[in-house]
Amino acid sequence: MAIELYWGSGSPFAWRVMLTLEVKGLAYESKLLEFSKGEHKAPDYLRINPRGKVPTLKDGDFVVYESLAMMSYLDRKYPMPPLFGTTPEESGLIWQAISECESYFTTAGDKVVRRLFFGKGLDKVEEIQQAAATIREELKALDQRLASNQWLVGNTISAADIVMFPMIQLILRAAGKEAAQPFHLQWLPMATYYPNLAKWAGRIEALPNYQRTFPPHWRA
Amino acid sequence: MAIELYWGSGSPFAWRVMLTLEVKGLAYESKLLEFSKGEHKAPDYLRINPRGKVPTLKDGDFVVYESLAMMSYLDRKYPMPPLFGTTPEESGLIWQAISECESYFTTAGDKVVRRLFFGKGLDKVEEIQQAAATIREELKALDQRLASNQWLVGNTISAADIVMFPMIQLILRAAGKEAAQPFHLQWLPMATYYPNLAKWAGRIEALPNYQRTFPPHWRA
Repeated sequence: MAIELYWGSGSPFAWRVMLTLEVKGLAYESKLLEFSKGEHKAPDYLRINPRGKVPTLKDGDFVVYESLAMMSYLDRKYPMPPLFGTTPEESGLIWQAISECESYFTTAGDKVVRRLFFGKGLDKVEEIQQAAATIREELKALDQRLASNQWLVGNTISAADIVMFPMIQLILRAAGKEAAQPFHLQWLPMATYYPNLAKWAGRIEALPNYQRTFPPHWRA
Repeated sequence: MAIELYWGSGSPFAWRVMLTLEVKGLAYESKLLEFSKGEHKAPDYLRINPRGKVPTLKDGDFVVYESLAMMSYLDRKYPMPPLFGTTPEESGLIWQAISECESYFTTAGDKVVRRLFFGKGLDKVEEIQQAAATIREELKALDQRLASNQWLVGNTISAADIVMFPMIQLILRAAGKEAAQPFHLQWLPMATYYPNLAKWAGRIEALPNYQRTFPPHWRA
């Protein structure tokens, strides 16, 4: 039976898993759920993901959700190319970068991105400015790291790059919204503020089949 | 060279790593940092952990921080007993449980625990009540899961149990504070509200050398 991926357009968590599937060259059946129709809260979907979130992966009879768990499963089941390193040390550093992304970058992003997209809670100026500053610091640290390295950990693409990339794309898209202008976020243009990060993003965008992972509604 | 663990008393993230080391039967040198003396922000420590957080692990020349990364490293370096499963499916479900702990339980705990310990921000009643309700739901789901299973995933202790246990201990300790009484949290006594979870906690407390991992300042 084929791998099935249940996902939503623009979810950075789903995007991670699509990139994982593409980098590993795995065929999968795409099950795009429409948030606007509430398809992620439909009874059939809640049976495989009781939290009603995307993404969810079905591989034969096996079901797993939570993006990092899906990536971890795929790496153990389909080991080539390895995305969590080939040594204990590499594996540790890849998970370290992933944890740092989740603990600092994603957490700060949560305080800004939704507000800029949906225009709600924009009066919490101080909280937004603080989160925006954290994001600038994290982007700067990543940029420095990529000054002498092509990838975040080791000599090849890893789960660290795949976890980080969609989060960065999401916050940059939020930064392009008109609602972002009064905040002077200084995230964009990436090539000006974070040139090494921009080159790294270009390397990911040049991956075969990258275009298949790009959120369809972002093209509009 | 011995493994060195830099940790702080009461940090659930450090506790995870200590439990990992004990379950694997690994000898390590304990480097207890005193938060009150700012030892986690001292220049020597910042050289191995630029974020100034605990825990950090040093194994010979190799340094890794972020608790899940440390656990992942230790499991690859010292595979017995395996804490991230023996099949891709087990590994996926263990990471799924860990991700759910971080995304829902830890996030909700953050909104309550610090406030109850330090008595600051207790006027955010609605936010606290909402987070408390989330924690009740998560505890209930875990309790149901443990009705017919000894451990969270599979037939033996795994990283899922080890990640979850210290977070639960932390929130229960917070629930015992006087500041918690007006909120009627309904977390304690655990044996009344969550009997299966209480038995599971007992199994972890019965592990050899468990006492060595118990936060020293909690004994006072």
